Amino acid sequence: MLKWVDKINSPADLKKVPLTKLPEVADEYRRFLIESVAKTGGHLGASLGALELNIALHYVLDSPKDKICWDVGHQAYIHKIITGRRDRMTTLRQHDGISGFPSPFENPHDHFIVGHAGTAISQAVGLAAARDLKKETEKVVAVVGDGAMTAGLSYEALNNAGHLKKDMLIVLNDNEMSIAKNVGAISKYLNKVLTNPIYNRIRSEVEKQLEHFPRLRKFAANNLEGMKHLFVPGILFEELGFRYFGPVDGHDVVQLVKTLRQVLSLGDCSLLHIVTEKGKGCKFAANDAEKLHGVTPFNVQTGEKIAPAATSAGKKVKGKAYTKVFVEELLKLARRQKEIVAITAAMPTGTGLSEFEKEFPDRFFDVGIAEQHAITFAGALAKGGLKPVCAVYSTFLQRSMDNLLHDVALQRLPAVLALDRAGLVGADGATHNGVFDISYLGHIPHAVIGAPKDQAEMGRMLELGFKYPHIFAVRYPRGEVPIRFAERTGIDTFEIGQGEILREGQDVSLLCLGSTVELALQAADILKEQQVAARVVNMRFARPVDGKLIEDSLAKTKCIFTIEEHVLTGGFGSKVLEWAEENNIAGTIRRIALPDEFIEHGSRDILFDRFGLSPEKIAQRVLTQLRDNSSVSLFS
Amino acid sequence: MLKWVDKINSPADLKKVPLTKLPEVADEYRRFLIESVAKTGGHLGASLGALELNIALHYVLDSPKDKICWDVGHQAYIHKIITGRRDRMTTLRQHDGISGFPSPFENPHDHFIVGHAGTAISQAVGLAAARDLKKETEKVVAVVGDGAMTAGLSYEALNNAGHLKKDMLIVLNDNEMSIAKNVGAISKYLNKVLTNPIYNRIRSEVEKQLEHFPRLRKFAANNLEGMKHLFVPGILFEELGFRYFGPVDGHDVVQLVKTLRQVLSLGDCSLLHIVTEKGKGCKFAANDAEKLHGVTPFNVQTGEKIAPAATSAGKKVKGKAYTKVFVEELLKLARRQKEIVAITAAMPTGTGLSEFEKEFPDRFFDVGIAEQHAITFAGALAKGGLKPVCAVYSTFLQRSMDNLLHDVALQRLPAVLALDRAGLVGADGATHNGVFDISYLGHIPHAVIGAPKDQAEMGRMLELGFKYPHIFAVRYPRGEVPIRFAERTGIDTFEIGQGEILREGQDVSLLCLGSTVELALQAADILKEQQVAARVVNMRFARPVDGKLIEDSLAKTKCIFTIEEHVLTGGFGSKVLEWAEENNIAGTIRRIALPDEFIEHGSRDILFDRFGLSPEKIAQRVLTQLRDNSSVSLFS
Repeated sequence: MLKWVDKINSPADLKKVPLTKLPEVADEYRRFLIESVAKTGGHLGASLGALELNIALHYVLDSPKDKICWDVGHQAYIHKIITGRRDRMTTLRQHDGISGFPSPFENPHDHFIVGHAGTAISQAVGLAAARDLKKETEKVVAVVGDGAMTAGLSYEALNNAGHLKKDMLIVLNDNEMSIAKNVGAISKYLNKVLTNPIYNRIRSEVEKQLEHFPRLRKFAANNLEGMKHLFVPGILFEELGFRYFGPVDGHDVVQLVKTLRQVLSLGDCSLLHIVTEKGKGCKFAANDAEKLHGVTPFNVQTGEKIAPAATSAGKKVKGKAYTKVFVEELLKLARRQKEIVAITAAMPTGTGLSEFEKEFPDRFFDVGIAEQHAITFAGALAKGGLKPVCAVYSTFLQRSMDNLLHDVALQRLPAVLALDRAGLVGADGATHNGVFDISYLGHIPHAVIGAPKDQAEMGRMLELGFKYPHIFAVRYPRGEVPIRFAERTGIDTFEIGQGEILREGQDVSLLCLGSTVELALQAADILKEQQVAARVVNMRFARPVDGKLIEDSLAKTKCIFTIEEHVLTGGFGSKVLEWAEENNIAGTIRRIALPDEFIEHGSRDILFDRFGLSPEKIAQRVLTQLRDNSSVSLFS
Repeated sequence: MLKWVDKINSPADLKKVPLTKLPEVADEYRRFLIESVAKTGGHLGASLGALELNIALHYVLDSPKDKICWDVGHQAYIHKIITGRRDRMTTLRQHDGISGFPSPFENPHDHFIVGHAGTAISQAVGLAAARDLKKETEKVVAVVGDGAMTAGLSYEALNNAGHLKKDMLIVLNDNEMSIAKNVGAISKYLNKVLTNPIYNRIRSEVEKQLEHFPRLRKFAANNLEGMKHLFVPGILFEELGFRYFGPVDGHDVVQLVKTLRQVLSLGDCSLLHIVTEKGKGCKFAANDAEKLHGVTPFNVQTGEKIAPAATSAGKKVKGKAYTKVFVEELLKLARRQKEIVAITAAMPTGTGLSEFEKEFPDRFFDVGIAEQHAITFAGALAKGGLKPVCAVYSTFLQRSMDNLLHDVALQRLPAVLALDRAGLVGADGATHNGVFDISYLGHIPHAVIGAPKDQAEMGRMLELGFKYPHIFAVRYPRGEVPIRFAERTGIDTFEIGQGEILREGQDVSLLCLGSTVELALQAADILKEQQVAARVVNMRFARPVDGKLIEDSLAKTKCIFTIEEHVLTGGFGSKVLEWAEENNIAGTIRRIALPDEFIEHGSRDILFDRFGLSPEKIAQRVLTQLRDNSSVSLFS
């Protein structure tokens, strides 16, 4: 049915296609991709936009000897298909299926696992430097979206690349979007390059005129440094040491192949600026490019979302998404407290802050993909008398640890951090799991780390956070408030570091917080069937921990278990151990947490089970401990 | 004796000086500053270079209502002197004296504690945004060295500032140096702006010609976007949304005042590019600007270092500096292993890598002040088959946590991290203390964290590190190897995670590593006088810890103390607690570490004493525990 695509199972197969037939190949891949992602869900828009680029790169390069570094990597689905993974596209982003991002552990044509923006130029410079030291000759290409160009890491790498001047090519894939519409001066600049007819008119006219005066042309090129601005739209990149080419139409695959060949043959440190349309060829994806950045399965004809089978089969209805709960509670507070301002790093929809922007446009700041600046900027807003909240995914805030320490905490300034996607994220996998934040925030002097189980706790935590004079982080997972707490929408009344006993029991205490409260309650039900009475303590805060409840639980039950959706090292359980040591309190404390390793994509339920966090596995672990407790007297 | 300076104790006093007399004021301040820093030591070069700028800013602005954000801040000594701290300059960088960096807790004219490069633009944007929301009108100025312009944070902030277009001014203080000679494309670019006569010639000629054709001039300005490149040398900044002014002579204080007045009156988002000479007016500082970036006390006439009184009074001779020990051992390995490459982020001398550069120029990379890129780049070098070592100060590596997690560890790539200045740094204070690294590295899957006590251990750790397939960090403090280990220059033979018993004793075990080994041994001497026999265990590694030695020590002594030069939370002691929990081992474990707070400048000895890490305080703590042990049975 697919005339070309059925024959292409490797880059070598692709190279057999005549150049003039590549547009047909592109059409077929486009159809295939839309139908495939309609079934599995995935990052459709980016891969449609970069579709011709994927084809052209593999047509021109000799991968995997020549190396393509993808930035973020969700534009590389066609690369995956060309490099032998077409049959596995049905397993995209599913547990034990292929990843939504490149991965060298999946295929030799992928060189890095990616997912955080801004890494590709840095990686390409490194590969090019290593190549030159080893006196090898392969080509190195970085493919970077314009969104990733706002990341400081991209700039640090550009600065270094323009200095080292290695033979390498950056393809700037410009669709004027990162995930949301791009913001920032660099974006305006690129847009001006694309749209300002003066640039292009002057350029072509002067070039035409100069053709008649070859000596003048040569003189101008050699001597008049300032004159080149007349010819080159990408002056910013030229100034940073690159040869700039473009802008060219990123959907004209034949032209792309020719341009890539020409640029790569120069062996220079170059940047090729291509213009593409996110979601090209799929009207649902192109019309609402932000919303369709990542899609769930949809009807190819209508674009309508297909409800997952599980739900229609009678799976429990869930509460509101934590993201929505966060923004609802934030808006309530922001209506009363005019000093509250909100900051996002290019994720207005993902973090829910687009709702805040609608209501308070002046008090909303999208700084672009720039998590470092987001936090330092927040510190300065606080210094200026405002109350900043930064809503960032837990995994992306990893970029800001120094800013949190040096530019907020050290200054004794406040900032509320709304850490969305804290915990396992499901289909996005290892690059997006937010499982290190308790650890990397835990050592920041005076930082509070809370994890609300429901909307009433979210409201109270934000209320407390905006009163607190230091960093106050609220972490919550991808997903919805458990149904048993869905109606708790008032505002709780607890204080910082204060937990609550949800269920009494004299045999064992389960200390949990946020997303693990539901798991602990279900584990307690299972334990009850085994005649074990578990006390369930919702600690609410990983820092400071509720010492009274720890002491009381150690005194009244045989041992306590801490349960958290975070890695073992430096997590909530570790904070409980540290508290016991500092306060000289004896007793048996055991930790249940995710292992100290990177966890692949897969549904949270599957992963909880695999790593011992499902209610069943928690109950088993408790029973084993209680059985062995007579022989082992850990900490007791 | 000082005609002007004696009368100036506030910015208001300065404003009373007639503009034409400011050069005399500058001369006096220069003399005063050199004599003052010759006595105390400090960051002389930067403050001499920015001396006229400090004066001009306070002459023009109404500080502290108008706000000056200093980047890094060691160029602000004259600002300190003008704002009422002249008398306290004798206490510069001493414990309980004034800080070497700005600090709002010291003076209302300082708005942020600074020390890490690249924060000022971000902070200025934040203050400007807060001002506008509050409908106030003060001016906001960021003072940034060209070195700090290589930091990704600076760029993220530029991108945001050029987008928001707030009324703010960036003064780019360009001396072609950060600490070492600047590297990178942005530096080349700035240099070209300064030195390329074509830029300036075309500019002035075209401007002159156009004066005769006012309509053409207007047309060109309004319509020919491309034409402005003929007039503006700072096109890169113009493209990012700033109005660019300069370059102007940063040592002509009268001109500076006039230019600042003019630029500030426009109320625009502007950048003023000034050119200065680091160390201006002090031939010792100017001749060797890198070495004299931070100086110890010196003879004003000859420039010779004055040996501190303590040494001549017979203080113990010390071993080699750890920095030197590191680079000596690195060179030994690099001579045998051609794949070893070394990376610094603008600190070739501070990290000792300038020695490596001399011997292996092709295998050495200075990426500029760009710690994020340094690590991602290192990961890619490793991917390319090389063995990278990044030598970075512990406090600056805080910027790289995400790169370590996402771009090295997740990729299953190796990198050796040489964490210099791990622990308290003395005079530089809170911004430079490296006391969080065990915590922020501890949760990185498979990361090893070692701390050598001497050269033999350093050699072995580096040898192990270059064989290890994941991140391998070696942390060592500012200062010298203790004299008792000074001769241990062979290579040890231990494996990863293997400690050693340095001294036997049956009452208590002191578990230490790196810089605390000496402290523990001295504490054991004091305890012996009190009839307490302490076992001293050099653990060598904070991760993985030596479980056998922990178990053995718990079995053979009444309790164990962990001793570390690091904050409590997530430190070495915490790793020991975590190990005991994971392995179900009971016993009394107590932690001695720095408190979870920011620690001010002061000598390490003074601070150790204050925070309980001196041998005397360690011994006291142990005695108290042993006395109380009968009543409290923590973990035993």
